[in-house]
Amino acid sequence: MSDAVYKTVHIIGSSPKGVEDAIEGAVARASKTLDHLNWFEVKEIRGHIENGKVAHYQVGLEIGFRLN
Amino acid sequence: MSDAVYKTVHIIGSSPKGVEDAIEGAVARASKTLDHLNWFEVKEIRGHIENGKVAHYQVGLEIGFRLN
Amino acid sequence: MSDAVYKTVHIIGSSPKGVEDAIEGAVARASKTLDHLNWFEVKEIRGHIENGKVAHYQVGLEIGFRLN
Amino acid sequence: MSDAVYKTVHIIGSSPKGVEDAIEGAVARASKTLDHLNWFEVKEIRGHIENGKVAHYQVGLEIGFRLN
Amino acid sequence: MSDAVYKTVHIIGSSPKGVEDAIEGAVARASKTLDHLNWFEVKEIRGHIENGKVAHYQVGLEIGFRLN
Amino acid sequence: MSDAVYKTVHIIGSSPKGVEDAIEGAVARASKTLDHLNWFEVKEIRGHIENGKVAHYQVGLEIGFRLN
Amino acid sequence: MSDAVYKTVHIIGSSPKGVEDAIEGAVARASKTLDHLNWFEVKEIRGHIENGKVAHYQVGLEIGFRLN
Amino acid sequence: MSDAVYKTVHIIGSSPKGVEDAIEGAVARASKTLDHLNWFEVKEIRGHIENGKVAHYQVGLEIGFRLN
Amino acid sequence: MSDAVYKTVHIIGSSPKGVEDAIEGAVARASKTLDHLNWFEVKEIRGHIENGKVAHYQVGLEIGFRLN
Amino acid sequence: MSDAVYKTVHIIGSSPKGVEDAIEGAVARASKTLDHLNWFEVKEIRGHIENGKVAHYQVGLEIGFRLN
Amino acid sequence: MSDAVYKTVHIIGSSPKGVEDAIEGAVARASKTLDHLNWFEVKEIRGHIENGKVAHYQVGLEIGFRLN
Amino acid sequence: MSDAVYKTVHIIGSSPKGVEDAIEGAVARASKTLDHLNWFEVKEIRGHIENGKVAHYQVGLEIGFRLN
Repeated sequence: MSDAVYKTVHIIGSSPKGVEDAIEGAVARASKTLDHLNWFEVKEIRGHIENGKVAHYQVGLEIGFRLN
Repeated sequence: MSDAVYKTVHIIGSSPKGVEDAIEGAVARASKTLDHLNWFEVKEIRGHIENGKVAHYQVGLEIGFRLN
Repeated sequence: MSDAVYKTVHIIGSSPKGVEDAIEGAVARASKTLDHLNWFEVKEIRGHIENGKVAHYQVGLEIGFRLN
Repeated sequence: MSDAVYKTVHIIGSSPKGVEDAIEGAVARASKTLDHLNWFEVKEIRGHIENGKVAHYQVGLEIGFRLN
Repeated sequence: MSDAVYKTVHIIGSSPKGVEDAIEGAVARASKTLDHLNWFEVKEIRGHIENGKVAHYQVGLEIGFRLN
Repeated sequence: MSDAVYKTVHIIGSSPKGVEDAIEGAVARASKTLDHLNWFEVKEIRGHIENGKVAHYQVGLEIGFRLN
Repeated sequence: MSDAVYKTVHIIGSSPKGVEDAIEGAVARASKTLDHLNWFEVKEIRGHIENGKVAHYQVGLEIGFRLN
Repeated sequence: MSDAVYKTVHIIGSSPKGVEDAIEGAVARASKTLDHLNWFEVKEIRGHIENGKVAHYQVGLEIGFRLN
Repeated sequence: MSDAVYKTVHIIGSSPKGVEDAIEGAVARASKTLDHLNWFEVKEIRGHIENGKVAHYQVGLEIGFRLN
Repeated sequence: MSDAVYKTVHIIGSSPKGVEDAIEGAVARASKTLDHLNWFEVKEIRGHIENGKVAHYQVGLEIGFRLN
Repeated sequence: MSDAVYKTVHIIGSSPKGVEDAIEGAVARASKTLDHLNWFEVKEIRGHIENGKVAHYQVGLEIGFRLN
Repeated sequence: MSDAVYKTVHIIGSSPKGVEDAIEGAVARASKTLDHLNWFEVKEIRGHIENGKVAHYQVGLEIGFRLN
């Protein structure tokens, strides 16, 4: 695996359900246009509040993938 | 929306169930005394351990709200 | 409780299910060889991606315990 | 001045004009309900974009004031 | 203790004597207007210098307390 | 707005006039090739000095936009 | 001294008296089971509050020691 | 340009007008005693408040210059 | 050079030989698809271990380039 | 690989030759007492100076390994 | 006080007695060669251990002073 | 060694060869005008790219030395 080169992008998923659902939505969206997705790292967990309740979670990810 | 002014407070929710439940408890408590809650950002995720198991999660949030 | 001394170790749990399951696995494993586990703090949330989907979550914890 | 005690609050000002205008709006709003404002420190500079242009700046401040 | 909600405030104590005296002054002042003070964390240690000597120490604390 | 996915890019604008002009130049350039620009966050403020004077400001921005 | 290898551990001392006493208690405890202790670095200063007063200080240290 | 060696100093400019004026004052002052000033990086933006208004801005800069 | 706009990307090179070889591989790969590469900054140095030895180094770089 | 649990330790290698040699020495030493070493991350690069020259490099690593 | 320019230096004091004594020694030493010392900020608290006891504390300070 | 006082300066070395050569150049330059150089710590590793290749490395160091 040596000498491989990787790139990361910063993607933010959102979901009314929770942290994992926002992460999985971000990864699914990234996989539509990028190949060889390899890992992610959570960079921030935020959300919006409406009427005193959590309306949706927003989770920012660094997603890494191998370049050909 | 320009020229609006916001304030943030740092609130820590706790729950035996998990991260989202602790977040939602903190937001619900904050909405009892503050109006116009707008967003949150997770600042730390901690918890207590009893008898070798997670007893409860503690999630610290910065909660932002608009000042009148 | 004064004059107690604590130590922390850095443990990383993994789970295909989600963040809390990875945390609870890490705590369970630590409790097999360490006594008096007292608290944890999440230090990083990562994961691996396979075939464009989250394969498993990896959550790094600082776990604190009291020394005798 | 010794033995004085200070408190800080986190306030976010916004302005379509620029960074200083957002700061000054935040300080003016804080001075309506707090006495003895003493210093500020910029914690983040953000903004919203509409139609490809900066719509307004948002500047988060830690504002410090002396407690009586 | 689960499901408790906590809040933190940022208070800065000062003292000509030293770090602990500044901390204890800040905690004493906070306890005059807040109940259920629970923990503190030192965020910064600063001070002023006059005539080439330390005139007083300033210690910034995050102080946490339980909300009813 | 839930379930939307966003991406950020890191763009650095420069201007001899000042911070806001550098930000606005970076946003204008980004809007030429990206749609749905939504927010920015300042990450660093730097500049070059020539003949003992500020020659131009360089402001690095994280710019966020919605993915379709 | 070249080619020596060191390890660090994270130890938290506590004391009702103050910061130095907590540090010295942590170092004394570490020296009971580890040889060749060489340096420490303070990582966090916290404490508990009871009845509106500092009950004890907690000081987290990275303690370094040489491996044979 | 290879093998050049640079040094940085930390200078804080102040101005009642705004951020750029404080930066330019700091650079002008540094250029009185240092040659070959090359770049700056903003490290903190603070200010003092008097009578509920911003009295002056204080901008801390790392200023880099080439050593002969 | 004023009013130029730059972008950065995050690229991770790997090499069994060492840090510089991983950096140079990452830069070489980036130059295949990007023009006007201008600077890099090392963000993390990691590596994999196999059979108790370093198998390869992984160096993450922020690489900056000028946009036309 | 799911449900695996890992631990990290902080080890500092030193070498008069350079950064990679210090890293490899630290990994070699760790492998004498720990099995299943898997990855490392550089946390700090320091060194001592004697007679105006670098006497040896000191590189601190977080080394991760799988627990059985 | 507007338009004043300040500089900071990084000085490390050491003392076998404790944190405040190390700070005061560093300030006293700095005042021998620098005028108009104005403030300090603690940047790190370290120390050396000999025979399992704290031999001396080392406290790093950023010390600020006004330039004429 | 107690009660010694140290100062640090921030120096950036550059070299077309690599990280260690840039460090050693910075230390050599510093030793021309400063006595009692004692340690260094790497603060940033950067470089310039020309024609798609690394033209030179730039390594920023905090260099510490004892004051008489």
